[in-house]
Order: sequence, then structure tokens, then C-alpha cells
Amino acid sequence: MMNLTQALDELVTANRILACEGVVDSFGHVSIRHPYRPDRYVLSRARAPECIEVEDLMEFTCDGTPTDPVGRKPYAERFIHGAVYEARPEVRAVVHHHSPGVIPFSVTGARLSPVMHMCAGIGTRVPTWDSRATFGDTNLLVTNMEMARELAEALGPRPVILMRGHGCVVAGMSLREVVFNSIYLQLNANLQLKASGLGEITFLSEGEVAAVLRTRGSFTFERAWEFWCRRAARPYDVRPMEGTA
Amino acid sequence: MMNLTQALDELVTANRILACEGVVDSFGHVSIRHPYRPDRYVLSRARAPECIEVEDLMEFTCDGTPTDPVGRKPYAERFIHGAVYEARPEVRAVVHHHSPGVIPFSVTGARLSPVMHMCAGIGTRVPTWDSRATFGDTNLLVTNMEMARELAEALGPRPVILMRGHGCVVAGMSLREVVFNSIYLQLNANLQLKASGLGEITFLSEGEVAAVLRTRGSFTFERAWEFWCRRAARPYDVRPMEGTA
Amino acid sequence: MMNLTQALDELVTANRILACEGVVDSFGHVSIRHPYRPDRYVLSRARAPECIEVEDLMEFTCDGTPTDPVGRKPYAERFIHGAVYEARPEVRAVVHHHSPGVIPFSVTGARLSPVMHMCAGIGTRVPTWDSRATFGDTNLLVTNMEMARELAEALGPRPVILMRGHGCVVAGMSLREVVFNSIYLQLNANLQLKASGLGEITFLSEGEVAAVLRTRGSFTFERAWEFWCRRAARPYDVRPMEGTA
Amino acid sequence: MMNLTQALDELVTANRILACEGVVDSFGHVSIRHPYRPDRYVLSRARAPECIEVEDLMEFTCDGTPTDPVGRKPYAERFIHGAVYEARPEVRAVVHHHSPGVIPFSVTGARLSPVMHMCAGIGTRVPTWDSRATFGDTNLLVTNMEMARELAEALGPRPVILMRGHGCVVAGMSLREVVFNSIYLQLNANLQLKASGLGEITFLSEGEVAAVLRTRGSFTFERAWEFWCRRAARPYDVRPMEGTA
Repeated sequence: MMNLTQALDELVTANRILACEGVVDSFGHVSIRHPYRPDRYVLSRARAPECIEVEDLMEFTCDGTPTDPVGRKPYAERFIHGAVYEARPEVRAVVHHHSPGVIPFSVTGARLSPVMHMCAGIGTRVPTWDSRATFGDTNLLVTNMEMARELAEALGPRPVILMRGHGCVVAGMSLREVVFNSIYLQLNANLQLKASGLGEITFLSEGEVAAVLRTRGSFTFERAWEFWCRRAARPYDVRPMEGTA
Repeated sequence: MMNLTQALDELVTANRILACEGVVDSFGHVSIRHPYRPDRYVLSRARAPECIEVEDLMEFTCDGTPTDPVGRKPYAERFIHGAVYEARPEVRAVVHHHSPGVIPFSVTGARLSPVMHMCAGIGTRVPTWDSRATFGDTNLLVTNMEMARELAEALGPRPVILMRGHGCVVAGMSLREVVFNSIYLQLNANLQLKASGLGEITFLSEGEVAAVLRTRGSFTFERAWEFWCRRAARPYDVRPMEGTA
Repeated sequence: MMNLTQALDELVTANRILACEGVVDSFGHVSIRHPYRPDRYVLSRARAPECIEVEDLMEFTCDGTPTDPVGRKPYAERFIHGAVYEARPEVRAVVHHHSPGVIPFSVTGARLSPVMHMCAGIGTRVPTWDSRATFGDTNLLVTNMEMARELAEALGPRPVILMRGHGCVVAGMSLREVVFNSIYLQLNANLQLKASGLGEITFLSEGEVAAVLRTRGSFTFERAWEFWCRRAARPYDVRPMEGTA
Repeated sequence: MMNLTQALDELVTANRILACEGVVDSFGHVSIRHPYRPDRYVLSRARAPECIEVEDLMEFTCDGTPTDPVGRKPYAERFIHGAVYEARPEVRAVVHHHSPGVIPFSVTGARLSPVMHMCAGIGTRVPTWDSRATFGDTNLLVTNMEMARELAEALGPRPVILMRGHGCVVAGMSLREVVFNSIYLQLNANLQLKASGLGEITFLSEGEVAAVLRTRGSFTFERAWEFWCRRAARPYDVRPMEGTA
């Protein structure tokens, strides 16, 4: 198991990678479940992901209360993270982002499903949650546990959910996994958008999606992580690897 | 209140950010109302935004007369800025730009409205002004107060107006706000263009746009400003912050 | 009038700018009419524009014969340049390029016309030349004076012509002008492509195109040139300026 | 003939170029037939192309057995390379990649054919292989010789084949050629995608494709290789050149 210093350093790296790959701009955030205290999560203070340092990372209880703010202002939408950790004990990392690839699908209701094996981690079909259905005309931000719990419920056991006119949530078993699925979610959206102008799309079958997920090991995530670390000018620490790719 | 040195330095940064984010190329310009003399504005001499230094900044009266040119050549279209400051006493910064995301909407009459919460600052629906309606076949440049005043009148109380076959004007309460709205205008245009190929678009409702504007504070602009400063390799000075994001 | 050393240095810069702005990749070339000997032109040896140094520049008579090759291999398509200089005494610079924005128009016959004032320099409507009409199935390269003269004839007095499945030729009164028109040709193509998905396009009227060309001075080209030099990491030498922008 | 040290160094460069040009991301791989032992090929250990060093290169027999693994983990899909070398004695280099330009064609069955002379190397019409036809629901990876041989058979004597929902294979007579055709395959896909929104496309005729291939010499590949080396920050070694471009 990673020690806390390593985990925090990796969380900074995840922020920088998501910025470098264009998944987040000034907004969007990524958290991990606390490695020793599963009832808490770690998330930066409110700051653009590209700018985040270890000193910006804060600890929260699942209801979004900072345990040691020392003057740092948290993200208004941190509740998204807590609600997912609360509902999904197996989840160890969460990303909320506004990738420009993803928004067009969130506002048209167009099907979003894997068109390529590397994108199977987004699930067979990505659902969309619309805050207006229950909460009416808001600023679309998920700024309390009530909204966040409804969103987490709509996510259910899935890896990804879109948020209409806003962005998406990606939940997974590790930080590398949610970063990987965030980036390939963006790629899948871009690929599908292009393909939609060419003809009818053959999506991966349910059996294919299942086969990819069954055979994908940490090795796949490691290979990508090393590449993204290099692009984001962050050090890469080799991890013990398993599985095939 | 900022001192003049800070204000000019921030205006140079705004130029560099708009260039770095692809909103302006060699053309386009950004001004501030003079911090002490509200009947004047500050705008660079005619130069590409990416190249501008503090020494390039000039002072103009609202009719476009430079108060101290010392051999510096002003932008031919500076009148756009003066006409907006003249018509809108609350406006403190103006951008005129030709973002490649925006032009396609200006020449097709396609609706341009927020598809995402971060883009609500462009207003419920962006109008288009066509110089040809009143002025006939021109080089499309707004090079006198008569054209500029008609454009400012068409803008009315709104934050943004498109100019057919030319670009747009963005007006706001602070430099950070107009830069923010310029960049998210470009993003909204790009998102809408993609979405238009996927199906019918659900735009933000009027109530949602109003809610975003009501709850958005300087905090939102600060977070983005720090990020854009880093990308444009400009120093970032922390400002006192308010509001939520 | 520029001396030869300055002219050659500027030609290297033009190559680097066209590469930096994505107008050329490994292929494509730009020439100037010789500043002292109007029956000759200057063009690099066969090399990618991004890599060109002053030592690569060669002198050619209008029929494409190198006057001092010293072991340097010329571009196979240099004849394009000679045929334009031969047919158009007023032309002082020529670009042949394969911009990825332009090719889609060359293979579909879709109208390509200015949608924005900065792009008026491409002419009211850009024609397309198809080598197959006269020469049948070739490798599409213009490798002799016969093909080049037919192409130059099709160009006529215009600033730009497309070549089906190949690229285009841009001819103008100065190096800065052809670089400017090459880059804004690419932009116009990209803008028009986007606009074509949104609705019917209002192009600039003939009167507007004429008005832009009538009022555009070297000042416009200078402002862009300084910006592009900075992006391409080339020194910028201020030139005496005229006209408005 | 190149010595082995040169060949391995060139293979590292090929990996970096394909990454730099966006043809591969963390995944995809490029191999050469061993310069002295035609029954073997050289391919990196499982690592992102951008990160590969000479020490990562491994030797394999055509059935995918590493001859000297020394603890290095091979790509799970190395079998693609061996099956092509086995079936095509003239082939000296193979790329397997997932270019985002190419995937949309693989999942729609849209025709993919050259629209531009530089792209003629992809062949008159690029076929698509679907792993599901014979192997049913898999993770789409080609992880054994049985699948790889079926893929190689579908490729036949052609330079390129797409793989549905996965990527493609590019095979050629030299490393420079497969890198060139990989990059121009991506460009052709992007050009065709754009053109498909503008009108009916005039593809290169079969005679034109044949004429390009007949007249293209190593000179063409060299000019591009120098450019791509510079972009990827790799040293460029001049090679003796032949042919025209």
C-alpha cells in the first residue's frame, strides 16, 4: 500500500496530467479516498488543476467538511466526491471535469458508447443526469449533499455519468484508472463525433466491452501513466505491474 | 482600487492571455477604462497582442483621440472601445476580437447561446450586427464614431455582440471578466458547433443563465486568471476574492 | 529597396513562418523574384521549409534552370514559380502549399470565398485547376514548364488558385503579402468548413472584398509579420509602414 | 546497408516521431525486420513510444518469441508484426497504431482512399478487418499468431489495413516509408472527414495512385524524415538519396 506522501504526490500529478491533456481547464477536480481513513477523501483547495501543489491538498469527511482548512478555500462542488465515496465503498478515486469533447453529448442526448477498445472503461452506455429535473433552474453547480447524492444515485455502479450543460463524473478503483478513463472518455467522444459524420457507427458489443474490462490490468494504466507524466513534466515512479496489454 | 501601474501591467497580461488562448491572432484588441479618469480609456498602439509591452499602451478620450501619442500609431478600430465606454458607464473593459470559433456564427445567423454553465456570461442569446445594413459595402472595419456608436447601440446592455464577417465585441465590469467571457465565448461556439452535428441542443434556460450570473463572484475569474497567467508565462498577483465557484 | 542579404533572410523567415503556422509540412515552398534581376527567382533547394537556412537558397531563371547549383538538388516543382513570374511581371513572391484546410475544397468543388475581412486577399472566388483535364493520370506534380504554364494561365490575374488533390498557388506583390494570404486562406477554409455545418453562409460581397483590398496597406502585413516572427523564433526587422489597419 | 546500431537508433527515432505527430499515444508500436536475420524482427518492450530508448528494443522470432528478454515485458500484440513479416518477405517495417483520424473510418465502413498525392501510399482503397467475424467477442487485441495470421491474410499485398474499433496496420519496404505512410494515412483520414461535409469527393484515380508510387523515391521520405526529426528533437543523419519530389 502506498504511503500518504506518495499518494498526495500522485494526486498532484493527476491534476497536472488532466490539465496537460486538455480534460480540465481552470475548472474540474480530482480526488482520492484517504489511503488510511476510508471515511475521508483528499482534494485540492479551489485552484486550477495545472497550478496545484501538495500544499493545496485538503482532507474532507464524506459530507464535505474540511478537517484542517487553515484558511484554504475548498471547491464549491466538493460534495460530488463525497457522495460517490459514500455510495460506493469500492471507489478509490473520482474526477469531475468539463472536457470539451464530452459537453456536446451532454446537451443533445446523443448516445455515447465505446467505439474503440481503449475506451471500453467508460461502460457500455454513458447516462446523463440533468440537475433541472429535480432542482429546477440553478447555476448547475452541485454545491450540497442533496444534489450530490442524487447525482451519485444516477451514476449507480457505473464508471461515468454526464451532467447536462455542465460536465461529467468519473469514478474508479484507483487514481490511475480514473485519469485513464477521463482521457479516453474525451477521446471516445471526439472519435464518435467524427464518425457520426461518416455513417452508421458500429459500437463495441457488450461482450467486447466486458472482455476488455476482464483482461485489462494495471499494466495498461502504467504504460499510459509514464507517457502522461513525461508530457506533464512530472517524475514517474515505476509501480509493480500485473495483467496484459 | 488598483493603481495605474498595476492596471497597465494587467492590461499587458490580458493581451498575452488572449493571444495564448487563440482568441486573438495578429489582430484584435483589449482596453480598460482609465482607472482615475472615467472619460478616457487605455489601449495599446497598433500591434499584435502577443507582442505588446507596457510602453505600447496609450490613453484616449472617448472619441478616439490619443492624449499623448508620441509617435505611436493607434488601432484604426479604437472607436469601438470609446463608443462602448460612452454608452455604458458601468463598463470597465472591452475586447474586440476575431476568434475563429465565433466567425462561423456571425456569417450564418445560427443561434449562439450558452450550452454550459461556464459560458453563461455571454448572455442568453448573442445578437449579430451587420455593418452593411447601414453603411453598405465597406472594408468592414469600424473606423469612426458613427459606425462605432451604431454598433454600441446594437450591443445595448448585453455582454457580447457578433459582427458579421468580422468578429465580436465583449464588454464587462472588469478586465478579468471580459477576458473570461471572451475565452468562454470561443469555447461555447466550439461546443455548439460540435453539438449541432449530434442532435437538437438543450441550451441553458434563461433561469439557469440568470442563476449563474447571480452567483458568480470574482473567485471564478481569479481561478481562471491564475491558470491563464501560467500558460502565458506572466506573473500572477493574488487579488482579494469573493463569491463562490 | 531591400538589399539581397535582407531579402534572403526574409525568405528564410517566410519558410519558417509557413511551417510554424501549419501551412506547409515537409512539403510546399515559397520564392521571391530576384530583387535585382527580374528574370530570375530565388527558392530553396529541396528541403522542408522548417529546416531551411540561407545557404539553401538557389537562383533560377524563369524556365527553372539553376544558375549556380553547386550540388544542391532543386524542388521538382520549381516550375510553378517560374511560370507565374513569367506570366505576371508585377508578382514578386509565390507560395505553393498543401494546407490541410485547403485540400477539402480542392477535391469537392465547394465554393471557397472570403467569409471574413482579413481573408479578402484570397479574391472573390478561388478557382480550382485539375491537372487531369489536360495531362491525364500523372503523379499530380507540376514538374515541367508545360504544366506550369497551364496552371499559371488558369490562375490568370488572381491571387490564389487551388490544385485538385494537391494544394494551391498564392501569388502577390511582396513576400509578406503571399505569406499573409496563405495563412488567411487556410483560416478562411477552416472557417467556411465550420460555417457550412451551421446554415447558409453570407460571404463578403464583391464590393466589400474590393474595399478591403483598396484600403489595406503594408501596415496590416507588418503587424502580422511581427507576430509570426515571434512565434517562429525569428528576428523581426521593423519596416517603414503605410496604410491603415 | 545500415549497421545494427544505426538501425536501432532509427527505430527509436521512428517511435518518437510517431508520438510527436500524434499517430500513437501511449499505445501503438513500430518494428523493423532484423537487418541481418530476416527471420527475426526488432520491437520495443511494452512501453509508450515517446519514452522508448535503445535499451528497450528486443529481438523476436516471427512467432513472437523474444530471443533475449532479460526481464523485459513484450507488447501483447507483437504477433501482428511477426505475422506480416512471415507472410510478406519484402516487408522490412511494420507499424500498428490507433490514430484518432483513422478510427472513425474503421467503425463506419466509410470508404478511405487517397484525396491527395502525398497520401497515395495508403493504396487505392483501404480495407477493414473485423476481429469479431471469426473470433467473436474478444478484447479486440491481437494476442496470438492465429489472429495475427488472419489479419495478415486480410492485409494481403496492400500497404494498410484498418482494424474495426481498434486501429490499423501499416507495412512497407523501409522504416521511413511506414512512418511516412502512417502520418499521411492520418492526414488523409482527416482531410476526407472534412471534405465529406462539403460535397462529393473526387479521389485520386487508380492511374494517379500508381503514378505517384512509380515516381516516388527515397528523396521524398528523406525530406519528411529530416523535418520530423527536428520536431521530435532527434538527430538527423543524411542518407544517400534517389528519385524525385
